[in-house]
Amino acid sequence: MIARGRFITLEGGEGAGKSTQSRRLASALAAAGLPVLRTREPGGTPGAERIRDLLLSHGPWETVAEAMLHFAARREHVARVIRPFVEAGGWVVCDRFADSTLAYQGAQGLPREVWARLADVALEGFGPDLTLVLDLPVEAGIARAAARSSADRYERMGAAFHRRVREGFLAIAAAEPQRCAVIDAGAGAEAVFAAVAGTVRERLGAAL
Amino acid sequence: MIARGRFITLEGGEGAGKSTQSRRLASALAAAGLPVLRTREPGGTPGAERIRDLLLSHGPWETVAEAMLHFAARREHVARVIRPFVEAGGWVVCDRFADSTLAYQGAQGLPREVWARLADVALEGFGPDLTLVLDLPVEAGIARAAARSSADRYERMGAAFHRRVREGFLAIAAAEPQRCAVIDAGAGAEAVFAAVAGTVRERLGAAL
Repeated sequence: MIARGRFITLEGGEGAGKSTQSRRLASALAAAGLPVLRTREPGGTPGAERIRDLLLSHGPWETVAEAMLHFAARREHVARVIRPFVEAGGWVVCDRFADSTLAYQGAQGLPREVWARLADVALEGFGPDLTLVLDLPVEAGIARAAARSSADRYERMGAAFHRRVREGFLAIAAAEPQRCAVIDAGAGAEAVFAAVAGTVRERLGAAL
Repeated sequence: MIARGRFITLEGGEGAGKSTQSRRLASALAAAGLPVLRTREPGGTPGAERIRDLLLSHGPWETVAEAMLHFAARREHVARVIRPFVEAGGWVVCDRFADSTLAYQGAQGLPREVWARLADVALEGFGPDLTLVLDLPVEAGIARAAARSSADRYERMGAAFHRRVREGFLAIAAAEPQRCAVIDAGAGAEAVFAAVAGTVRERLGAAL
């Protein structure tokens, strides 16, 4: 029997360094000899990428409809890619997952209970073994994101919105400390990665 | 206080004449002096039409993901168009609605209970006052649909699939006789419309 792999998600607001850290983490796991898949949401399958395009190019969506689109994409991603890979023994590193839907759509008024019902239908209990919440003061994140080429819809939404998003992620981490670890993302990429690698070593026993 | 309008849906398999009958019904209601909106699903708002394009142009979708896309489009349609129009006193005639998702996705393996949970999140109890199920033997429907210009994904799916869809619609009508009326769609368009108009007159009191 093949041992089940692991599913690791990176969460956090704009400019927190999720892409950089997920790339480094995937490289380090691969260097440790593990079969690794790095992916991101929304997206990760051809259909889910089409939904991603729709989410980013059209809007504003009605709040519940937007959450349903996110979970439709997530269902495709989990059913076709993440779950089969993890069940075959692989390690998946995913930039954003269901917590982002709760933090972002929650900050726009989606009730937590509606999120939970959709998560239940789409995921049927499947979820991350470990979630790294990269935490950064809102102003620092916005400044970092602004330094990148083009701002997307969320990046343009203003400090009050991003403060609610940050509080959302911290509330998720506080409610599920077994699954989540909050990482201070304010330090340099090296220092942040040391914390990421240390957490993955400690929590999941990876030889990083 | 404005009296609430009415929400009428037309359901049935391919080639049953839903477009023709919904056009005629909308014209007759308008001629009777009622404010009428004729629409169709999936679609009916700019966002929902984009989801429709995605549903038709990409596939096959994972079954639950596909149902979530249908309900995301439906949520947009109901929240932005159908419900406000009905609450303002208007009559909405809609070609396909939630019953189509149950009949078609159900015929592809979607559990009824998953459909019900999604309907509950998306519609919050809102639904048609009257559903006209245009019923036709599968062979006749396929022949009629084949005579049209281009077959879409569902139209190409074969007789066994379409038989399950037909059975699905008839089971819905049998389970909810208060809301649903089965109309024999095998006659000519005139005769079918006489039955449609008679049902709308009888059930909803419209002066057709």
